[in-house]
Amino acid sequence: MIVVMPISGRQFLLLPALAGLLWAQPAAPPAPIVSPEVHADKRVTFRLRAPNAKEVFVNRAGSPKLAMQRDEAGVWSVTTDPLPPDIYGYSFNVDGVSAMDPLNSVLTPNLLNPSNMVHVPSATPLAWELTSAPRGAIHRHFYHSGIVGDDRDFYVYTPAGYDPTAKTTYPVLYLLHGFSDDASGWTAVGKAHVILDNLIAQGKAKPMLVVMTLGYGAPEIVSRAGVGAFRDPSLVKRNYDRYRDALFNEVIPAVEKSYRAKPDRESRAIAGLSMGGAESLYVGLNAIDRFAWVGSFSAGGASSDYAATYPKLDAKVNEQLRLLWIACGTEDRLIESNRKFIEYLKTKDVRHTAVETPGAHTWLVWRRNLAELTPLLFRPKGS
Amino acid sequence: MIVVMPISGRQFLLLPALAGLLWAQPAAPPAPIVSPEVHADKRVTFRLRAPNAKEVFVNRAGSPKLAMQRDEAGVWSVTTDPLPPDIYGYSFNVDGVSAMDPLNSVLTPNLLNPSNMVHVPSATPLAWELTSAPRGAIHRHFYHSGIVGDDRDFYVYTPAGYDPTAKTTYPVLYLLHGFSDDASGWTAVGKAHVILDNLIAQGKAKPMLVVMTLGYGAPEIVSRAGVGAFRDPSLVKRNYDRYRDALFNEVIPAVEKSYRAKPDRESRAIAGLSMGGAESLYVGLNAIDRFAWVGSFSAGGASSDYAATYPKLDAKVNEQLRLLWIACGTEDRLIESNRKFIEYLKTKDVRHTAVETPGAHTWLVWRRNLAELTPLLFRPKGS
Repeated sequence: MIVVMPISGRQFLLLPALAGLLWAQPAAPPAPIVSPEVHADKRVTFRLRAPNAKEVFVNRAGSPKLAMQRDEAGVWSVTTDPLPPDIYGYSFNVDGVSAMDPLNSVLTPNLLNPSNMVHVPSATPLAWELTSAPRGAIHRHFYHSGIVGDDRDFYVYTPAGYDPTAKTTYPVLYLLHGFSDDASGWTAVGKAHVILDNLIAQGKAKPMLVVMTLGYGAPEIVSRAGVGAFRDPSLVKRNYDRYRDALFNEVIPAVEKSYRAKPDRESRAIAGLSMGGAESLYVGLNAIDRFAWVGSFSAGGASSDYAATYPKLDAKVNEQLRLLWIACGTEDRLIESNRKFIEYLKTKDVRHTAVETPGAHTWLVWRRNLAELTPLLFRPKGS
Repeated sequence: MIVVMPISGRQFLLLPALAGLLWAQPAAPPAPIVSPEVHADKRVTFRLRAPNAKEVFVNRAGSPKLAMQRDEAGVWSVTTDPLPPDIYGYSFNVDGVSAMDPLNSVLTPNLLNPSNMVHVPSATPLAWELTSAPRGAIHRHFYHSGIVGDDRDFYVYTPAGYDPTAKTTYPVLYLLHGFSDDASGWTAVGKAHVILDNLIAQGKAKPMLVVMTLGYGAPEIVSRAGVGAFRDPSLVKRNYDRYRDALFNEVIPAVEKSYRAKPDRESRAIAGLSMGGAESLYVGLNAIDRFAWVGSFSAGGASSDYAATYPKLDAKVNEQLRLLWIACGTEDRLIESNRKFIEYLKTKDVRHTAVETPGAHTWLVWRRNLAELTPLLFRPKGS
């Protein structure tokens, strides 16, 4: 069918065939529904049409699941209490099967469990919310890793005003994602670029580059076995060691060749979340000749034999290590192992900052951690 | 529960709490299934666990839907015939509701219908498959558009060897996505960066920059109304005019300031798919002082009052327009309107290249179109 409408004296040929684009929609769609719907009072309504389902609920990262109720049209829905402004991860569970929200185009990339996000905006912008701050850019680089043996990518954030032809040079934060994330996680979900834009514009953080790598030295660790893969000790060791080797021999040289990066240890930081927190500690604390600033957020997956894992870690590092910053969510089951590591650092007289952040093992905690850590980095000695 | 295992003489604290990451998985998962599974003979098996569903099928972009069969464990599956090597888009439909494949982390971003992709690899690499060609990079820029009134982004591909501090300058292809895509579409789905990497390495295309904008001058056109939004003529006009104004006044100046871009009309091309094809024709053919190369792939959404839409389009443009390249899929319902425009060009003695590509209104056609068009661009006169 071709629809021709008179438009200000002209004939417009209107687009029957463009509907071919919308192949995922049934020919005669039922009444449209919206999901998620963020209300003015900060409650959120989730909806899913699933006429034959027996049980549907909303899985929320770090929060109890929410049972949804079915209406006579087969639409399941649930409305939360008012939520503190933030960016929340969620997915649906339909009769025991995880499902993304088909009405929400805001996706959370993940190699095992892609999901969705919903943003409850704040009247006073949170550090990861857009403001009028000048915007930096995100650069995605591709290369073949001879060390890992795959084709992979890394992302580089450059702050507003970065000019590759100017003389200004920048310190670099190497920022690592967690298990099952990919290299896009810290921007797509963690909003690292927005956090840095805001903190730099406010004068709270120094202008810096942020390099976000793919955190797998052994990509086969990301399998349907989930964290069960961590039961294979040779796989775990290969994952961490090859990650370090690729970082040192492939990523850092590429960054320092292509970007106006300061190439000294006082200008390099390494930090990461969960598996990436364990990697940051393992890589960073064994290479204080390369990194003066080390951070971990909700670290998990590291050895608890600290003396063997960090053989050179004692009070002598205090002269060189400008910051060792260890954070974990108070509701995170990993907090006990993080506290245990803090106790070990105390016995070794290693200077450190221990942070406990309200929250669970989720990006709500890690965005806060990044916003807290980055203002501390790259300060001159004595400041 | 804490699992401690002896590992080469050390104790590893293994990760009970990391399981918190996998909140979308039920506590006692059923037997794992794989989807999609690409067989050696190039058949593809899709699987979805949906124990209470009554009818499940696979929606494939541009191909007939495939009914899935349920097994006694509640797993639905279907296996295709052997498929020609390519990257295919698909989603599931469960009891009339679109669903993404929860086992496939390869996502097709889309503002209305996010879906998944499956790659059937070719023994001889297709232009959009990874090879050992040197890799370019993708740069994502963010800005507030005063013209459109939103915060938006654009992407810039730079070829391998691009050096912002060197003297070499590059021509620029402005490459536009279709209705319901976002600015990431041409890389995430269209593999424009891979296509250019391969063609440049083979000497088939000239090294060039590719700028991929957000193609909405009126973002509200992307609504649940789908292509129905194109029935509002003032909305359609605002969408195209503001897109052009943002391109001319915001994007092109930013690109030519930040990149080593040749700033002359012989070094600027504009091309796009579907709605972006209509925009490329509308913007490009009314601004041959800015663009010497214009292309459209499966253009849709343009006016059929050609004289009013392109008032200056006649044989005189042949002196300036180096290429007018108009492609459409043979199975695309838009092919008739594209043929009609070709006939109009003939009546006006406007030199052009008409291409009919086997296929429907899908990325399979558009990747081919980009791989065919880019070798033709930016050739010296007389070559």
